[in-house]
Amino acid sequence: MSETTIVALDAMGGDNAPQEIVKGAVNAIKQRKDIKVLLVGKEEILKDTLKSYEYPKEQLEIVNATEEIEMAESPVLAIRRKKDSSMSVAMKLVHDKKADAVVSAGNSGAVLVGGQILVGKIKGVERTPLAPLIPTAKGVSLLIDCGANVDARPSHLVQFAKMGSIYMEHVIGKKNPTVGIVNIGAEEEKGNALVKETFPLLKACKDINFIGSVEARDIPSGAADVIVCEAFVGNVILKLYEGVAGTLLSEVKKGMMSTLKSKIGGLLVKPALKTTLKSFDATAYGGAPMLGLKGLVVKTHGSSKATEVCNSIIQCVTFKEQAISAKIEEAIQLEKAQKETKKED
Amino acid sequence: MSETTIVALDAMGGDNAPQEIVKGAVNAIKQRKDIKVLLVGKEEILKDTLKSYEYPKEQLEIVNATEEIEMAESPVLAIRRKKDSSMSVAMKLVHDKKADAVVSAGNSGAVLVGGQILVGKIKGVERTPLAPLIPTAKGVSLLIDCGANVDARPSHLVQFAKMGSIYMEHVIGKKNPTVGIVNIGAEEEKGNALVKETFPLLKACKDINFIGSVEARDIPSGAADVIVCEAFVGNVILKLYEGVAGTLLSEVKKGMMSTLKSKIGGLLVKPALKTTLKSFDATAYGGAPMLGLKGLVVKTHGSSKATEVCNSIIQCVTFKEQAISAKIEEAIQLEKAQKETKKED
Repeated sequence: MSETTIVALDAMGGDNAPQEIVKGAVNAIKQRKDIKVLLVGKEEILKDTLKSYEYPKEQLEIVNATEEIEMAESPVLAIRRKKDSSMSVAMKLVHDKKADAVVSAGNSGAVLVGGQILVGKIKGVERTPLAPLIPTAKGVSLLIDCGANVDARPSHLVQFAKMGSIYMEHVIGKKNPTVGIVNIGAEEEKGNALVKETFPLLKACKDINFIGSVEARDIPSGAADVIVCEAFVGNVILKLYEGVAGTLLSEVKKGMMSTLKSKIGGLLVKPALKTTLKSFDATAYGGAPMLGLKGLVVKTHGSSKATEVCNSIIQCVTFKEQAISAKIEEAIQLEKAQKETKKED
Repeated sequence: MSETTIVALDAMGGDNAPQEIVKGAVNAIKQRKDIKVLLVGKEEILKDTLKSYEYPKEQLEIVNATEEIEMAESPVLAIRRKKDSSMSVAMKLVHDKKADAVVSAGNSGAVLVGGQILVGKIKGVERTPLAPLIPTAKGVSLLIDCGANVDARPSHLVQFAKMGSIYMEHVIGKKNPTVGIVNIGAEEEKGNALVKETFPLLKACKDINFIGSVEARDIPSGAADVIVCEAFVGNVILKLYEGVAGTLLSEVKKGMMSTLKSKIGGLLVKPALKTTLKSFDATAYGGAPMLGLKGLVVKTHGSSKATEVCNSIIQCVTFKEQAISAKIEEAIQLEKAQKETKKED
C-alpha cells in the first residue's frame, strides 16, 4: 500500500458546512485507508457533529480554528485579517508540510488568494489557474483557467497549457492529452489579440500536444482534453455549461409532465435517463484543482454536498502519488532554460 | 395593409444554396402579401430552381449576379474584389434604397465587412454588432455582440446596450427591456478591465433599463432581455449554447434507447418533448440582425434551411415598420448631444 495522503479540510467553508463537509470526510476515510483528514474548524462544533458517525478514529484529527471566512467577504481582506480562520489554518498546514492538500468549499476568491499567499506559488509560475473538469460526450476535459485572475497574458496561457497537460496525463490518466485554445473560429488568424498572440507560442511548444483552436460549440463533444482560455472566458464557459444543462433538463422534465401519455413514458424512461445524465453531472468529478502551487489546493463548489467533498478528498491521493507539483516545477524550469538558451542564440 | 418590405436575398450564400434559400423565399412570399423578394444570384440557376415552385410572380424578382463568395474566403478581400457577387449586389441594393433589407446565409465575416462598407454605418455608430436572439426559459434574449469585431471598448458596449434595447422593444415587443452585462460575479467590482470600465457607464445611462451584471449561469433562465458583451465572449456563449444543448439532447436520446423499457417510454414521451424542445430551437427565431447600419442586414446560420430563411425574411417587415434604423440614429444623436453638454458643464 502507498503512504498516507494527508488532507486539510476546511470544515467551516461552503453553504452546507459543517454537516456535509464532515460527512464527506467520514465517507472518504471509510473508503480509503491511505487517507488522513485534518478537520479544520471550531473544535466544539466539529466534535459535536462527529458524534453521530462511526469512523476509523486514527484517520481523522480535529485542528481547532476559531474564525470563519464568510462567502461574501472580500477575499484579500479576509485572508489578511482572519489568520485563525478554518481556511487559513488549513492552508498553513499545507505550507508547513503538515498536510499534502487542502480542500475547501468556501469563498472562491479567498481560496485563490489564500492559495497564492499561504500555500505559495512554485518558483517561475506566473499565475495559478483554477482548472475544473467538465463533462463531455467522451469523458472529461480540463477547463483552464476559471479563476478570478482575469485579463491574462499570452505567457500565462502557455503555462496553463503545460500545467493542464501534466494534470490530465498523470491525474486523469489521459496519455498525451490534446490541448486546444478557445477561439471564435478554427483558423489561426481568427481571434482576439490575446488568442492571436498565444496561438503561435502554443504551436511552438514541443512538450504539449497542441491541436489548435477549439470553438465553444465543440467543447461538449470533447474536442480537446485540455481547454485553454483566459479566466473570464473560462468562467463564462463553466457557468453557461451548468446553466444550459439545468434549464434544458427542467424543460425536458416539464415536457414529460405535460400529458398523461408522456407522464407514463417519463416513468419508463427515468431509470435509463438517470444513468446517462449522471455522466453529465459535474459533482461526480470532485473539485477543481488550483495548479502551480507548492501543495495541492482543491476548490469544491460552494453548494457541495458530502459526495463532492468525499470525491475531492480522494482526488488528492493521485495528485500526491504522481507528485504533480514536482512535475509542474520541472516543466517550468525547463521553460525557463529554453527561454534563456533562445536568448543566447 | 402596410406598405411592401423589399428584401434582397443572397441566393448563393450558405451551405444549402441555392435550393433551400429559394424555397425559403417562396415560402415567405406565399405567407405574406407585404413582402417582395429580390433574389440575387446567377440568373440561369435561379430560374431553373424556381421552375418547381408555384408562387405569386409579382412578389419575386431575380437580380443577376455573376460571382459567389465562398464560405472560407477572406472577408475583406472577397468584398473588395467580388463586386458582382450575390452578397455584394444584394447589399448594394439596400445601399441604393432599392431594398429595405438584405438576408444572407453566406460567409459571416463577409456579411459583417459588407454591411459596414456596402450598406454603411449610421453616423456616430462606433461598431455594428451582430445580435442573435437566443432561446431562454422565459422566451428569448438578445445577445449583443456575437460578431467578428473582438476587443471592444466600453463606449462600444454602451452603444450595444442602447441599440439592443431599441430592437427588443420595437421588433420583439418587449416593453422597457432589461439590460445586463455578462460578468463573472454579481458584484460591481468584479470583472475584467472592460467590464469594470463599462459597468458605471451603463449604470449612468438614463435611456436603458440596466439591471447590472448577469452571470453566464443565469442567461438560459432569462436573466435579462438584452445581454451585453464583447464579441469574443458573445461568440463563445452562442456556440456553447448550441454545443451543450446538442450534446445533452443526444445523450438523452441515447439514454432512451438503452433498454426496452426506456425505448417504449421514449416513444410515449416523444411528441410532448418535441413541443418543449422546439422552443429551444434557435432556427425558429430567424437570423441575427446586424445593428447600427443604414439598412437592415440579417445574417442567418450558414447551415440554414428554408424555414430559417423564411423566418429571417419575415422578420425584416417589423424592422422596417418600426423604423429601427431611424430610432437607433436618434439614440446615437442624443448620446452625442449628452456628451457635448457634459463637456460644456
